[in-house]
Amino acid sequence: MIDSVTKDKSRTVLTNGHNEKAWKVVASEAAKNCKNYIRDIVDNLVLEPNPDKQVIALSLGDPTVYGNLSPSKESVEAVLEAIESGKCNGYVPTVGTEEARQAVADYLSFDGVQYDYKDVILCSGCSSSIDLCITVLADANKNHNILTPNPGFPIYRTLAESYGIEVRSYNLIPEEGWIIDLAHLESQIDENTAALVINNPSNPCGSVFSENHLRDILEVAYKYKVPIIADEIYERLVFESTRFVSIAALNSHVPLLICGGTGKRFLVPGWRLGWIVFHDPVGAFDAEIRRGLGCLSQKTIGCNGIVQKALPKILLSTSQSFYDDVTTILYNNAKLAYKIIQDIEGLTVYMPDGTMYMMVKIQLERFPQFSTGLEFMQRLMEEESVFCLPGECFGAPGFMRIIITIPSELIKEACDRMREFCKRYYTK
Amino acid sequence: MIDSVTKDKSRTVLTNGHNEKAWKVVASEAAKNCKNYIRDIVDNLVLEPNPDKQVIALSLGDPTVYGNLSPSKESVEAVLEAIESGKCNGYVPTVGTEEARQAVADYLSFDGVQYDYKDVILCSGCSSSIDLCITVLADANKNHNILTPNPGFPIYRTLAESYGIEVRSYNLIPEEGWIIDLAHLESQIDENTAALVINNPSNPCGSVFSENHLRDILEVAYKYKVPIIADEIYERLVFESTRFVSIAALNSHVPLLICGGTGKRFLVPGWRLGWIVFHDPVGAFDAEIRRGLGCLSQKTIGCNGIVQKALPKILLSTSQSFYDDVTTILYNNAKLAYKIIQDIEGLTVYMPDGTMYMMVKIQLERFPQFSTGLEFMQRLMEEESVFCLPGECFGAPGFMRIIITIPSELIKEACDRMREFCKRYYTK
Repeated sequence: MIDSVTKDKSRTVLTNGHNEKAWKVVASEAAKNCKNYIRDIVDNLVLEPNPDKQVIALSLGDPTVYGNLSPSKESVEAVLEAIESGKCNGYVPTVGTEEARQAVADYLSFDGVQYDYKDVILCSGCSSSIDLCITVLADANKNHNILTPNPGFPIYRTLAESYGIEVRSYNLIPEEGWIIDLAHLESQIDENTAALVINNPSNPCGSVFSENHLRDILEVAYKYKVPIIADEIYERLVFESTRFVSIAALNSHVPLLICGGTGKRFLVPGWRLGWIVFHDPVGAFDAEIRRGLGCLSQKTIGCNGIVQKALPKILLSTSQSFYDDVTTILYNNAKLAYKIIQDIEGLTVYMPDGTMYMMVKIQLERFPQFSTGLEFMQRLMEEESVFCLPGECFGAPGFMRIIITIPSELIKEACDRMREFCKRYYTK
Repeated sequence: MIDSVTKDKSRTVLTNGHNEKAWKVVASEAAKNCKNYIRDIVDNLVLEPNPDKQVIALSLGDPTVYGNLSPSKESVEAVLEAIESGKCNGYVPTVGTEEARQAVADYLSFDGVQYDYKDVILCSGCSSSIDLCITVLADANKNHNILTPNPGFPIYRTLAESYGIEVRSYNLIPEEGWIIDLAHLESQIDENTAALVINNPSNPCGSVFSENHLRDILEVAYKYKVPIIADEIYERLVFESTRFVSIAALNSHVPLLICGGTGKRFLVPGWRLGWIVFHDPVGAFDAEIRRGLGCLSQKTIGCNGIVQKALPKILLSTSQSFYDDVTTILYNNAKLAYKIIQDIEGLTVYMPDGTMYMMVKIQLERFPQFSTGLEFMQRLMEEESVFCLPGECFGAPGFMRIIITIPSELIKEACDRMREFCKRYYTK
C-alpha cells in the first residue's frame, strides 16, 4: 500500500487514504527570530553599479578578498605540518585539545594576566564563542536581557534574538572617540540583565577603549553585578601609538568571558578558530558557568582539528614583523582615506585607532536630494560603483562603514569618487 | 574610587560600597539541560584496569586512535592543495561555498536521487547538522517533541533537551536486526511531534535498514505528517552483501533532512565537515524551513574553509579501493569479534551489517554476581583491562557497544579476555 504512495510522483493522489491533511512544516521561533541584519538591509537596496566604472566594495569585512593581505608564513606552515603529521584526523575534546588551549592561554597571558589551558574553550570561530557565551548566561524563560553596543556588530542581536532573549543597546558617543555613554548604559540595566557585551576594539567604529574607560565600564558592571562578555576579536590590531588593553588586564572583581580567535589578527577568518577565555578573579563562574560552557561545547563537538593542531605555532611563532606589517598597511590605508574624506564637504570621518574599519557620517542636511543614508549609498553605487556598508546594519542610520583592508590605490580611487559624488550633490 | 575596587585582589573588601550583593551567576536552562550522557555514565564508573594487562579500549568511537585506519591519500592531498592555494583563508558563505555544496550534491546523487548545491548546507560536523535540524523544526514553546531511536546515539537527546524539547524514544528490536518497532513508534507520535529522527546505518547497533523497512517508516511519517531527520553519517559504510539505501532514494512524499559528513566514511571526524541535505518532493520545506536553516547557519558562520576547499576532491576523487579497504577491515574485525563472542556462554552478540560498532548483550541472569551491566563492565576492566561502552549510554542497559576499528590482534585479545572473564563468572 505504501508503495503506491511513495512511488507516485503526484502530490495530491494519496491511494492509501488514511490521512489527507497537507504537509505544514513551520520553522521554529528560534529560526524565525534568527535574522541577518546586514543581508536584510543590503538585499533591500537597489544596487546597480555604473557599468563604466569598476565596482569597489568598501563593504566586505573580509581582509582576504583582494589578495593584498595574506596570513603569516608560520600560520600556513603550521597547517601544512599539522596535516602532514597525520595526527589531526580524529576527534578532539569538545572544548579543544589541551595543547591548543594552552597555546591560547600563553598567547593571551600578557600585561600581567596569567591564563591556564583550563581557562580556555575553543569554538568554531568567534561567532560560535559569542553564541555559547550568550547561551550560557541568558535565559529567555527568565526574561533576561543582554546589553550590546550601538553602533555595534549585529551578530549579538542575531544570536540573542534567536533564543528569545531581549537585546538592549547602549549608545557609543562618536564625538568622544566612540566611548560608551555610561549613563545610558546604566539606564539600560535592570535585575534581568544577564550580560554586558562590549566590543573592543570596535567593529564598526574602529575605536579602542582606554584603560580608564575600561575601568569605568567595569565599575558599572561591578555595581550591578553584571558579568561581561568582552568581544576582543580585534585584540592588538591597533595603530601606532594606540595601546590595546584587554579588559582582563585590569584585574577587576568582575567576571569576564573574553571572546577572540585567529580570524582577524591572523587574517584567516575562514579557518573558524575562536575561543572563550575565563577571567574570573571572584570565582563567580565556578559554580555553574564553566561546567555549562563545557556542556554547550558538545553542540558542535569542537572546532577543526587541523587548525587546533597548528594553533601553537600560529599563535606563538608568528613573527612580530607580520603583525607590524599588517597594522602598518591598515594604518596607512586609514590615514589615506581619512585625509581625502576629511576634505569632502558633507561628510564627517572618524579616524580609527585600530581594526579594519572606519566610520563616516553623511551630513544629510547637506544632501537634501536624499532623505536617508541608504538612498545616498544607493546613488553612490549607481553613479560611482562604490559601495559602503550602511550604518543601518549597525544601528547607526546616516553612517557608512568603510573597510581599510583593500589595496591603497583602490581606497584612494574610491574616496576620490566619493568626493566627486558629494561635490555634485552638496548643498550649502 | 573604582581603582580601589579593581586593584584590590581580595574578594570581600568593597571600598566603593555602593553595592554589596555578592556575585551570583547561574547557568541558563539551556546549559543546565545540555547533558553529556556518555560522560555522565562513564565518569561514575570505577574504572581501574588490571595493572598487569594492557588496557584495550573498545569504547572510543574514533577510528583514528590506533593508527591502523588512515584517511585516503586523496583527502590529505586535497587539504594540502587547499592550504597551498592561498584561496581558503577568507570567510565563506554561512551555508558553505557553492563548489563544496555542489560536491556534496554530486557525491550523494545516486540510486536515482538528484541533488543540486542549493539543497546542501554545510555545517561544523554532523553534530552541528543535527543541531540545526532539530532547532529549525522543534519549538519548546509549542511543547514539541521529537522521536529518537532506542538504543540510539545520545547526541539527539543532548541537543533537544538543551532547547527544552521533549524527547520520546521508540524501540528498536534486537532480535529482528534492530529494525524499528513500528507500532511503538506510532504510539509515540502526537500532534506535537515535530520530527522523527532515524539513524541508518545505526550507531550503536551496526544495523542497516532494508529498503522495505524504510518504506514502512516513511508510511508512518507520511500518515502523521511528521518530517524525518535522517542521520546517515554512516552512509555506505556497510559490509559485503549489505546494500545501503538512503531514505531519499525511495522518493516518498515525506520531507527529509539528510544529515551526514566526512567524519566516518572518510575517517576524519576531527575535520568537522558535516552537511544537511534537503530532499523534499512535496515542497513542505519551501515556505519556511530552507530559509530558517540558512538563517541558523549564521550561528557558526560556516565550517572550516580549508576543508570546504578540499571537499570536491575528497568526495569525488577518493578511489573506490579506499572505501573497499576500509569496509573490508571493519568487516573482518566484525567477523573476528563475532566468531569469538558467539561462543562465549552468557553473552549474546549481534553481527553488524555496517558502521564501526557491534552490540553485545550480557545475559545478566547468568552472572548473578553482577546486578547490572555496569557492574559487569567495571569488573571486566578491573580484571581484564578491557573497556566497552555501557549500553546505558544509548538507553540500552545490559548491553555493551564494542568498536571494530582497532587492530584485529587487539580485537582478538580483547575478546579472548572477555571469554576468560565470562568463564569465571558464568552460572548455569
